[in-house]
Amino acid sequence: MKIAVIGTGMVGRALAGRLGGLGHDVVVGTRHVDQTLQRTERDAMGTPPYREWQRAHPAVRLATFPEAGAHGELVVNATAGAVSLSALEAVGKTHLAGKVLLDLAVPLDLSHGMPPRLLFANTDSLGEQIQRAFPDARVVKTLNTVFTEVMIDPRRVPGQHNIFVAGEDAAAKLTVEGLLRELGWPKEAIIDLGGIQTARGTEMYMQLYFILAEKFGFDFNMAVVRAP
Amino acid sequence: MKIAVIGTGMVGRALAGRLGGLGHDVVVGTRHVDQTLQRTERDAMGTPPYREWQRAHPAVRLATFPEAGAHGELVVNATAGAVSLSALEAVGKTHLAGKVLLDLAVPLDLSHGMPPRLLFANTDSLGEQIQRAFPDARVVKTLNTVFTEVMIDPRRVPGQHNIFVAGEDAAAKLTVEGLLRELGWPKEAIIDLGGIQTARGTEMYMQLYFILAEKFGFDFNMAVVRAP
Repeated sequence: MKIAVIGTGMVGRALAGRLGGLGHDVVVGTRHVDQTLQRTERDAMGTPPYREWQRAHPAVRLATFPEAGAHGELVVNATAGAVSLSALEAVGKTHLAGKVLLDLAVPLDLSHGMPPRLLFANTDSLGEQIQRAFPDARVVKTLNTVFTEVMIDPRRVPGQHNIFVAGEDAAAKLTVEGLLRELGWPKEAIIDLGGIQTARGTEMYMQLYFILAEKFGFDFNMAVVRAP
Repeated sequence: MKIAVIGTGMVGRALAGRLGGLGHDVVVGTRHVDQTLQRTERDAMGTPPYREWQRAHPAVRLATFPEAGAHGELVVNATAGAVSLSALEAVGKTHLAGKVLLDLAVPLDLSHGMPPRLLFANTDSLGEQIQRAFPDARVVKTLNTVFTEVMIDPRRVPGQHNIFVAGEDAAAKLTVEGLLRELGWPKEAIIDLGGIQTARGTEMYMQLYFILAEKFGFDFNMAVVRAP
């Protein structure tokens, strides 16, 4: 599948590399291609320069936001939640119309230290904001409840554990579930929560997630265990 | 142990009955004893009249909020989150000073239908509000992440699953962990998240919890599954 991954950070790279490795035709979108490639220092999160990653992943092309948007049949929002709407505006409404928009971003407010707060919660979610801003995109919120390495390789965490999907478009959710299966998520691990408003649940879970991550590290996931 | 359970709803009754059955000396606190005992109709949540429950649990005494507070060496807040602060005010600051205050309430806002929103989240929690309002109480937030029947009988849910404690007072948390063990929670199921601010995590998780409960019913719990 032709996939656009919007965002050049740790999460975008991990997804792009893994999806490329699975045989998909992946383009990574960035605001300024030259600036992204010229950087030689680690960024504020300690992520190495993109050019190093690019060298190791020659099949994944870097392009501008709108070029990536034009390429993708499916678009992955892997930007920081605080800038997701502006990045997707730059990708372009027309490039998102009718397409599956897999949103895995979390609207973190890092200005108060760890664990991060959310920029908004309880009465809204980033998933809903994106769906409202791009009504013709078929937004599916998923993968936002686990660390990058678990997203792309769920078998790192042993046994039964779960991943959630939320969105208005049943066919779009099926497409995303297919991608999740390719990443290694078993069918029975995937829980369809309902419409895009249920993204509030997985975004608000992030508070507990980061508290647990401070305690145990990021290499975990949650399982829903049901009575027989 | 002498225990006061504040609240006569479904959760308060279940806790009081179970703790009484374990041999504790339990008093249930209510605002107006006569009114509580005179009611003959089910309440808005469909809970049968208290007098029926009282008849089946003669060893558990009903008393006013301050009488219950005076009785309890440990006080359980099992009121609706929206009225917890006012109920605990009525119990009385002096009756809470120095005591373990086990808070299992959730600040639900039921005015927008299901799933409920929270009255506040992200920058505050009910656990913190109670600790601020009663600085001499030793507040421990716990049990708020599961349905009543799972609180008092965790073995209903098979295998490994978790319960959280949050609070400032290490000795108070040990006392509460002892009670959790009596209820059937294995030692390895209990995760100490840290100070009372971490109550934000378990309260915000309620959004996902209620979305899952709409899907699966309330008979479930979450497990934290870690990579080896």
